[in-house]
Amino acid sequence: MTYTDATFQEIDKALELAARAYIPFKNSSLGARRNFLHAIAQGLEAAASALVELAVGETHLGAERLKGELARTCWQLRSYSDAALAGHHLDVRIDKANPDRKPAPKPDIRKMMVPLGPVVVFGSSNFPFAYSTAGGDTACALAAGCPVIVKAHPAHSETSEAVAKIILAAAASTHMPEGVFAHLHGAGFETGKALVVHPLVKAVGFTGSTSGGKALFDWANQRKEPIPVFSEMGSINPVFLLPEKLRQSGEQVARDYAASITLSVGQFCTNPGLLIGIAGDALHLFATQLGALMEAVPPAFMLHQGIARAYEQKRQTALTQANVETVGVSKVPGTGEGVPTLARTSAAAFLSNPVLHEEVFGPYSLLVECKDAQEMLQVALHLEGQLTSTLIASDEDWKAHSQLIEVVQQHCGRLILNGVPTGVEVVTAMQHGGPYPATTDSRFTSVGADGIRRFTRPVSYQNFPDHLLPEALQNGNPLGIWRLVDGNWEQ
Amino acid sequence: MTYTDATFQEIDKALELAARAYIPFKNSSLGARRNFLHAIAQGLEAAASALVELAVGETHLGAERLKGELARTCWQLRSYSDAALAGHHLDVRIDKANPDRKPAPKPDIRKMMVPLGPVVVFGSSNFPFAYSTAGGDTACALAAGCPVIVKAHPAHSETSEAVAKIILAAAASTHMPEGVFAHLHGAGFETGKALVVHPLVKAVGFTGSTSGGKALFDWANQRKEPIPVFSEMGSINPVFLLPEKLRQSGEQVARDYAASITLSVGQFCTNPGLLIGIAGDALHLFATQLGALMEAVPPAFMLHQGIARAYEQKRQTALTQANVETVGVSKVPGTGEGVPTLARTSAAAFLSNPVLHEEVFGPYSLLVECKDAQEMLQVALHLEGQLTSTLIASDEDWKAHSQLIEVVQQHCGRLILNGVPTGVEVVTAMQHGGPYPATTDSRFTSVGADGIRRFTRPVSYQNFPDHLLPEALQNGNPLGIWRLVDGNWEQ
Repeated sequence: MTYTDATFQEIDKALELAARAYIPFKNSSLGARRNFLHAIAQGLEAAASALVELAVGETHLGAERLKGELARTCWQLRSYSDAALAGHHLDVRIDKANPDRKPAPKPDIRKMMVPLGPVVVFGSSNFPFAYSTAGGDTACALAAGCPVIVKAHPAHSETSEAVAKIILAAAASTHMPEGVFAHLHGAGFETGKALVVHPLVKAVGFTGSTSGGKALFDWANQRKEPIPVFSEMGSINPVFLLPEKLRQSGEQVARDYAASITLSVGQFCTNPGLLIGIAGDALHLFATQLGALMEAVPPAFMLHQGIARAYEQKRQTALTQANVETVGVSKVPGTGEGVPTLARTSAAAFLSNPVLHEEVFGPYSLLVECKDAQEMLQVALHLEGQLTSTLIASDEDWKAHSQLIEVVQQHCGRLILNGVPTGVEVVTAMQHGGPYPATTDSRFTSVGADGIRRFTRPVSYQNFPDHLLPEALQNGNPLGIWRLVDGNWEQ
Repeated sequence: MTYTDATFQEIDKALELAARAYIPFKNSSLGARRNFLHAIAQGLEAAASALVELAVGETHLGAERLKGELARTCWQLRSYSDAALAGHHLDVRIDKANPDRKPAPKPDIRKMMVPLGPVVVFGSSNFPFAYSTAGGDTACALAAGCPVIVKAHPAHSETSEAVAKIILAAAASTHMPEGVFAHLHGAGFETGKALVVHPLVKAVGFTGSTSGGKALFDWANQRKEPIPVFSEMGSINPVFLLPEKLRQSGEQVARDYAASITLSVGQFCTNPGLLIGIAGDALHLFATQLGALMEAVPPAFMLHQGIARAYEQKRQTALTQANVETVGVSKVPGTGEGVPTLARTSAAAFLSNPVLHEEVFGPYSLLVECKDAQEMLQVALHLEGQLTSTLIASDEDWKAHSQLIEVVQQHCGRLILNGVPTGVEVVTAMQHGGPYPATTDSRFTSVGADGIRRFTRPVSYQNFPDHLLPEALQNGNPLGIWRLVDGNWEQ
């Protein structure tokens, strides 16, 4: 089934309703918003079989994976709205008055975060549930108190439409204002641009390609009133294989990485696309083992034709660069498109060829062989911003490579020790974000309850009597939230 | 004395040293950084008389005002680095592992803020101490662990040079790395642009004009790697005079505002440039009283010739608009340039003429007379983003104007009840910032210890043994800082 692109009139209408919904929604209680988000989760669970079936048909992702993703989506909705109820995203600070201060009395000042206004969320292709219609950005924006307008991803518009109906039903059953949520279709870039430049939009959430995310960022900054854009644009997630740990655990690391590189046909923004090691027997053995494991993984259908074509093209481009050789390519016969591939190059070739720094979105990884630790440091120094970096390292490695470890931390949002980057835990301590070009704003996360803060800004209240303050700031703390009062955290 | 503009070679050298200083400075202890900032404060205090004398000569601000500003600057340096020592800006979150979780074990994840890298700070013209060389942006960036490169404001370059020497001496005496601070001159825009587009710069702090701040923002976004720019560009700080409170306290309000509008010759970004009331006897009386008080305030020399010229030109432009009349203009003879002026217009004229929405930087305010509450609401709806908004309101007014109060909150960073917007308290609960065009990023403050966060980004550490974690994240909390552990704040 195909849907018509939203017209400018439809976009205008959705935004006008959202702008009207903003004040009542902002002023709804944290408890009411929590009920709304829990009702969405309940609705998604009640419709789980039908939703998973729709999504299997539209995305080629397996039913098991999609069931897990739907459960994660519900966990996001519930845990973010629970965190909001505890007031973490409000970042309340209270500095009480001191009328006796010299030379002038100190006024009472209290600060809290308030929602920005209507937020546009772009559905992603690779997470039809968790980073699309009722996904992380929507959950964060609604928990913050911002109305949401979703632009469905055209590759799974039916799934998106079904989820949108559940959100609208939850909004109605929990008495949310009309316009708090809207769902629009748009296959071309015009719909997206019209949304981002619309004067009533106050922030944008996006997960997808670098070119797409950067275009939204530029449009938003060229507006009369620039607005924040949170584009999560993926990365190649370098893995540094330090020599002692590789000698000790190379075989286990090869098994973990064969699984991580090919998980969901490699269609994760945290897919480990770059493995960096120091030439020697241990690295040679590791490459042989990982290559053999990749040869045994069957090709599989990718999310949609466009992604499959892009993967094949980018893979071929990478493999035909000078000094690049294949180590292991799937030998399993099959009709799928995403062919698991491990390639190898030298650090010298990698350092001199920017093509090899580009993400190949799919079950692909490039092993970079360095002559020595100094060359590995050079590779680290020349990497762009990343969502994650991983160190495969023993305590001895840690001591011997301290400069490398410093440099690696500067380029990423999350640092993993002796693990894989895929599998993004939905907890408050998660940082899913990183320096440009991984995202357009490294100071925020798109996973975990701290993502709510993306859609808020602080407002201070000066010299207010208690009864005119927002409840979150009143002396008696009627909401029972966490607050920083005169320098100490209290609940 | 005039200084030569920094050459591109000098800029390069300062940035290279700053980039080299970044890792040792980032890894210096919070205590060591606190000692550095306290040493700067001590150095400023020791040189206070000479510094104030220099600044009086360069800015025409009075010695008393400048003594107060220097004390405020020292308070900023001390209180921000003390707040950093308590770990508030680190925003630590710890989510502990759960190896028994099904279907997969939950890994240990811990997050903290890390410094962005070298920060460029532009000295402001109107705060030669508190928002210039050793001012708020410098204090925040250094407390965060970022090396700082200051571009001196050309209107007080000698004061700036003297303060820079004190910072460099404090860096040396507290054993900070070479390059942690640099001071450059530049009268033209080329120096500023070269700094903002330099690839080693990671963030920018600015306080000044809309055109200047917006130019920095655009250059920063057009870089290959866009970087955050915190431009605080001022606003007209509307004051809503609600009828009952004005009847009760009009005379006191007139006295408070005559003082606030003319304080430091009106050269504050929080200067109340717009007073909005509802036509009637109380407003008429208030205007007469305020006008008379303004007539009795002498003109005074402004910060520099350029600001004086701009004030006179903008004031004349405003006064010659259709339906604008003067209510009170200083009648005190004098040689000063900044002539205290109260003008008046109708809401209809204000709503139809964007010229009247522009900031007139100096001792000027425009009284907008509305026919009724509905017209006052229209004025509120048509205002752009503001640093502050003020309500002069009784409890009865609050009840009768709830829609207006909602709208006013949407347009500002700080809301003052029955007070004046000038006088920005340096506390953690302060929000000095606001929706565009007041600033380029409404989500951060440039006053108060929360301003440190502008120069940091989060990094998560996954699956680390305790002894390899940064101290801030270790189980024993050796730094004794505030941390959000499994959803609860602990110290």
